[in-house]
Amino acid sequence: MNDIKQGAANLINKVRGESPLVHHITNYVTANDCANMTLSIGGSPIMADAKEEVADIARIASSVVINIGTLNERTIPSMIMAGKVANESGIPVVFDPVGAGASRLRNDTADRIVDEINITVLRGNISEVTYLTGKKAQTKGVDASEHDMQNMSGTVAIAKLLATELECVVAITGAVDIVSDGERTICIKNGNPTLSNITGTGCMCSSLIGAFCGAAPNMPLIATVAALLTMGIAGEIAFSKAGQLGNGSFRTALHDAVSKIDTDTLMRRAKIYEA
Amino acid sequence: MNDIKQGAANLINKVRGESPLVHHITNYVTANDCANMTLSIGGSPIMADAKEEVADIARIASSVVINIGTLNERTIPSMIMAGKVANESGIPVVFDPVGAGASRLRNDTADRIVDEINITVLRGNISEVTYLTGKKAQTKGVDASEHDMQNMSGTVAIAKLLATELECVVAITGAVDIVSDGERTICIKNGNPTLSNITGTGCMCSSLIGAFCGAAPNMPLIATVAALLTMGIAGEIAFSKAGQLGNGSFRTALHDAVSKIDTDTLMRRAKIYEA
Amino acid sequence: MNDIKQGAANLINKVRGESPLVHHITNYVTANDCANMTLSIGGSPIMADAKEEVADIARIASSVVINIGTLNERTIPSMIMAGKVANESGIPVVFDPVGAGASRLRNDTADRIVDEINITVLRGNISEVTYLTGKKAQTKGVDASEHDMQNMSGTVAIAKLLATELECVVAITGAVDIVSDGERTICIKNGNPTLSNITGTGCMCSSLIGAFCGAAPNMPLIATVAALLTMGIAGEIAFSKAGQLGNGSFRTALHDAVSKIDTDTLMRRAKIYEA
Repeated sequence: MNDIKQGAANLINKVRGESPLVHHITNYVTANDCANMTLSIGGSPIMADAKEEVADIARIASSVVINIGTLNERTIPSMIMAGKVANESGIPVVFDPVGAGASRLRNDTADRIVDEINITVLRGNISEVTYLTGKKAQTKGVDASEHDMQNMSGTVAIAKLLATELECVVAITGAVDIVSDGERTICIKNGNPTLSNITGTGCMCSSLIGAFCGAAPNMPLIATVAALLTMGIAGEIAFSKAGQLGNGSFRTALHDAVSKIDTDTLMRRAKIYEA
Repeated sequence: MNDIKQGAANLINKVRGESPLVHHITNYVTANDCANMTLSIGGSPIMADAKEEVADIARIASSVVINIGTLNERTIPSMIMAGKVANESGIPVVFDPVGAGASRLRNDTADRIVDEINITVLRGNISEVTYLTGKKAQTKGVDASEHDMQNMSGTVAIAKLLATELECVVAITGAVDIVSDGERTICIKNGNPTLSNITGTGCMCSSLIGAFCGAAPNMPLIATVAALLTMGIAGEIAFSKAGQLGNGSFRTALHDAVSKIDTDTLMRRAKIYEA
Repeated sequence: MNDIKQGAANLINKVRGESPLVHHITNYVTANDCANMTLSIGGSPIMADAKEEVADIARIASSVVINIGTLNERTIPSMIMAGKVANESGIPVVFDPVGAGASRLRNDTADRIVDEINITVLRGNISEVTYLTGKKAQTKGVDASEHDMQNMSGTVAIAKLLATELECVVAITGAVDIVSDGERTICIKNGNPTLSNITGTGCMCSSLIGAFCGAAPNMPLIATVAALLTMGIAGEIAFSKAGQLGNGSFRTALHDAVSKIDTDTLMRRAKIYEA
């Protein structure tokens, strides 16, 4: 595991040195938080969702983040187009299937995105990822073997299964974050429950993944671990500084902590193990 | 009045226990604040405004909040559809007619919403509510009697009149908040003028009403009082902690105070009387 | 220079006294920050971008701010219409060509706006303004003379050139802010590098310009200097208070500082000179 931890920690300086341009097609609820998080880790955010320009923007970007939080008929074609251009350009695509399972539009769009685009990293909560796994398992005959299911926690099994099926990195965030590329599966025990009391921490994780992947396009597993360690450790620091004050102060402290995180802090505080 | 005050104070624990899903069709200016306020009081926000999915989302929600702050041709039909589905499902609909009176589009949309949807709670400032009252008074022959106008403050008369006409709870927020269901009219004297120095405190009130109504769908008067007491008292607490620092710190402290509010604080600080 | 400095400082009280209504057609990433900044300096923000209502809103506004940060096919016609109505009404138009140069859609839209609307103040970074300058220089045969280029810094030359060409005030913000109306060119040395670590400080500058111009429609040069001095000095104050804490606290302190700025502070701290 030390290779993963050290690799992740080293990426912080790489992001800050390269300042990757992270093209977001995202929702209007957390777009400001996502832009600020991208800046705080050292990346450069650009939000652009008009179908007339997403190809131009994706071509100059280091990575593309597709987040369906407030999807609509205008932005869905933009998501598809940006993803395809990113695939052609060989830059990473991060997909955040916000609310998959909650409406047919979200389900159909999530299905379409994983069908038509080569995703580099898929990040969601257990319910969103399970929707996609069930869909894939049902439609393509893939399943976790009985043996696997008995010997791994369900979440680890789902991450591994979907990573294998989609040939990408799958990250399931929650009390313990699970990151798998199908071969290796990493569990991250950092974080704080207060993270779920403010909006957008999932979206912000996806933006951080976009920034790390933009700086390390050939290391999506390690980049994703770096992003989730950053958010988890920042959540711990923010809670210790401001958790007792309330949600507003916690949120401010979370942005502070990400902007101040460094390699040493990540090495010292990371709690990861291999599943 | 003690029944109202105690009932409102008790609802805080009910919201935190049930975590109602509050479906927002709202503006992009304050959506982040509204989501965070919904979380801070214990609800669960979902923002979704595509006409292809609002019916699905409204069906799984505990309440629907319609806010016309940045309405457009794409979202207006979504507002109507979500409201109708909410009516069919029997869940509360909160309507915030942001800027009614300022443009024909806002006027026409506000008129259409009150005509086509059974609103549970209408919340606006005096100017927005007056627009709707004038419209209703003119078009449907309803008016406050001379006697009423002489014996009640104008704002109380307007709230009572529109509540009777629309058969809903009407909340007019301002230096003193007025809440009426046509039968009972409650005045709330909590709050702080600094609340008007940051954007979205009106929208956030509507989100809080959505959360309280989601947890107490059959008590819209008390739920609305609970929401406005929460914002007013949180404003007082935030001002005492951070008012001298400036608008940024006040805003952070406001979110803190809502996330920390409890039944005891509300009982101790509420300043309400019946008109 | 004392006339400019004193004139700018005096405008703070004028904005606070008149509370100009600033109509924004802007992006969803920083709209909340822009609304809060407009309030913090004493203006009144309204965000409205539906083509069905922008004419109504522009007619009651004191100024219009057009920001193409997340432009799309629906909002571009609204931008043009709002600008034309503002021109007819004789109220100032502030244009922020976010990302001009980065996509053909942004380029074409920026070109169209400067062609079809009489801009009062154009504010951008050096790259955005250079795009427009190059375009104008190429298509209309305007250029900075060899003599000018050798004797002025490039940025000052560009500001002066474009101001002359568009007959407006041009503000190029950066480490040193340059403001020119073609006749006089003012350089502002206030600010702090941390301002570029949070999203939207450029957009917020444009909103402040909108507020100052709304209160002083016939003094766009001084109004623009006042807005940029406000942001620059607030950035210095915020950094001294919260810069070491991180980006979240810096952002909160920036809003605090703008809400607390006054004529004396501006007079005492302004670092401006004429180019």
